[in-house]
Amino acid sequence: MKGIFLTFEGPDGAGKSTQVRLLANQLERLGIPYITTREPGGTPIADKIRAVLLDPVHTEMAPMTEVLLYAASRAQHVEEVIRPALAQGRVVICDRYIDASIAYQATGLGLKRELIQRISEEATGFLWPDRTYLIDVPAEIGLARVAGSRQGGLDRIESRGIDYHSRVRQTFLSLANEDSQRFLLIDGTQSVEEIHAEIWEDVQTLLKR
Amino acid sequence: MKGIFLTFEGPDGAGKSTQVRLLANQLERLGIPYITTREPGGTPIADKIRAVLLDPVHTEMAPMTEVLLYAASRAQHVEEVIRPALAQGRVVICDRYIDASIAYQATGLGLKRELIQRISEEATGFLWPDRTYLIDVPAEIGLARVAGSRQGGLDRIESRGIDYHSRVRQTFLSLANEDSQRFLLIDGTQSVEEIHAEIWEDVQTLLKR
Repeated sequence: MKGIFLTFEGPDGAGKSTQVRLLANQLERLGIPYITTREPGGTPIADKIRAVLLDPVHTEMAPMTEVLLYAASRAQHVEEVIRPALAQGRVVICDRYIDASIAYQATGLGLKRELIQRISEEATGFLWPDRTYLIDVPAEIGLARVAGSRQGGLDRIESRGIDYHSRVRQTFLSLANEDSQRFLLIDGTQSVEEIHAEIWEDVQTLLKR
Repeated sequence: MKGIFLTFEGPDGAGKSTQVRLLANQLERLGIPYITTREPGGTPIADKIRAVLLDPVHTEMAPMTEVLLYAASRAQHVEEVIRPALAQGRVVICDRYIDASIAYQATGLGLKRELIQRISEEATGFLWPDRTYLIDVPAEIGLARVAGSRQGGLDRIESRGIDYHSRVRQTFLSLANEDSQRFLLIDGTQSVEEIHAEIWEDVQTLLKR
């Protein structure tokens, strides 16, 4: 029994959480065992790390600190949540993973992509997803959605401005382009239902494997 | 103008904090610019990471998470505190550093020393101390001192037992043996004054360089 590891990636405001929920509902209806989880976070320890990472007060955080905190949270998350669920044969639906670290941290933080990838791979024992859904929207649209829906203002990473987020988007697109076996690129300007249908069709093929 | 980077290492209860204070007092009296700091911690961000690391509630912390959290705290500490002070020509006195990660985490956590060292070097941009004072005491003596002085009980790492702490001590001794240029090995069962005298004599030679 081996589970399936699915990750959702894309700029902030792409609609990942909505799609995670819709996919989870679908699996629930069909009685297919699954868990949903998210990065950074997903365990009590990782949630505390998440709080340090996203606190807008921490403007002095060094880029390397950010990379290592994400990696620490991910190490805990993989060990405590993802690997056990996969071992039980569940579908693991994870909101953000290694690709997000590469996109957000190799972009504009002046750190090498290889370094971030190497640290992430050490942190996870080289656990990569079976499929990654990249929901792509222009940074303007994503940020506008986030700003519109958020009551407490933007967090430390959301508030980095449109240029940064445009480059993040480009990095996501490059990653998808380089690994088209693993990635499914989805146009996030479609309706919620259309996006869900596209994802669900793909998940069905993975379940049949 | 280039500062001097000194670290203090040794088992818990070896007397590092006392020696850091005595050395700082000596530099203060002579008007030599210095700072004292400690790992993990030393900055607001690093102190929050320290709180996650040392909370005895976190018994489920994965070894890799621990390594990465120490590295994250260290990255921030180097960037925000140590490098700026060295650039100002100060003596930087740091209680624990990379050697502590190797001794505590490569010992008994099942992680490879090379992995820990590599992550630490990436985290610090390969900043190694000019001198490391290893104050050596048998684990029994160190732990007994800690237990005697601590009101709130032992933290998550102190409470790992005598076997673990004996192996930590052995790893420290091996590290000192392998890099006798950087390390000064000090018998921590001597009196506080004797230890201080030994350290101060060495610091004077470093200041004259």
